[in-house]
Amino acid sequence: MKKIEHIGIAVENLEFSNQLFEKLLGVAAYHSESVAHEGVETLFFKSGPNKIELLAATNPESSIAKFLAKKGEGIHHIAFEVDDIEQEIIRLKQEGFIFIDEFPKKGADNKRVVFLHPKNTNGVLIELCQEIK
Amino acid sequence: MKKIEHIGIAVENLEFSNQLFEKLLGVAAYHSESVAHEGVETLFFKSGPNKIELLAATNPESSIAKFLAKKGEGIHHIAFEVDDIEQEIIRLKQEGFIFIDEFPKKGADNKRVVFLHPKNTNGVLIELCQEIK
Repeated sequence: MKKIEHIGIAVENLEFSNQLFEKLLGVAAYHSESVAHEGVETLFFKSGPNKIELLAATNPESSIAKFLAKKGEGIHHIAFEVDDIEQEIIRLKQEGFIFIDEFPKKGADNKRVVFLHPKNTNGVLIELCQEIK
Repeated sequence: MKKIEHIGIAVENLEFSNQLFEKLLGVAAYHSESVAHEGVETLFFKSGPNKIELLAATNPESSIAKFLAKKGEGIHHIAFEVDDIEQEIIRLKQEGFIFIDEFPKKGADNKRVVFLHPKNTNGVLIELCQEIK
């Protein structure tokens, strides 16, 4: 776990929230990306050494659509940057943590990502991410 | 807004979550502190340039106790570090944001803190914090 790479925030309307977070953070978003297989559209802001990722659903069956329906807008996950995602999965499994995904998959912003199950992490959805070189 | 200073996570049992986050992050907590007037006990972990703050209630009327009763364990707030908290309050009020507190108050970890109202920030509870010199 090197550092917090980003915080993911689920929003209903990406256009509205883009303006809101631009005002809040005092900087414009630097990157937008759709991840079709996740049914999600994303927008990234830099915040010092970290990023804020806004997530909106493009598909009513997506995990973001389900999160919004259940919990409403708000913080969705914390992503930690790791150097070796396979090694970190092994370490955390040995510590008793459970993963949602069996293997890392391609995420937004040029990353391989994997999620831990929040039932073992105090209700916090945690992502591990490793930059694709 | 210089950077994310910390992420606050509401937990039921600080002792249990201390062990859990030590395993997750691979480091031990470096600081613990009770904030009596908030009815909260805190524990801090370093994560690269940021911190994770675990928050447990010491008083059933505290905002953490109410959060846990309503939403359960999970991410409670994001705190952004600022150089001049009064100036940042003025800037954000001009942008239309609403504050929970009228003035900054003393928080944990040697900070002056103020919270924005989450109804204007996509359901995200946002803290501004400035280190006390």
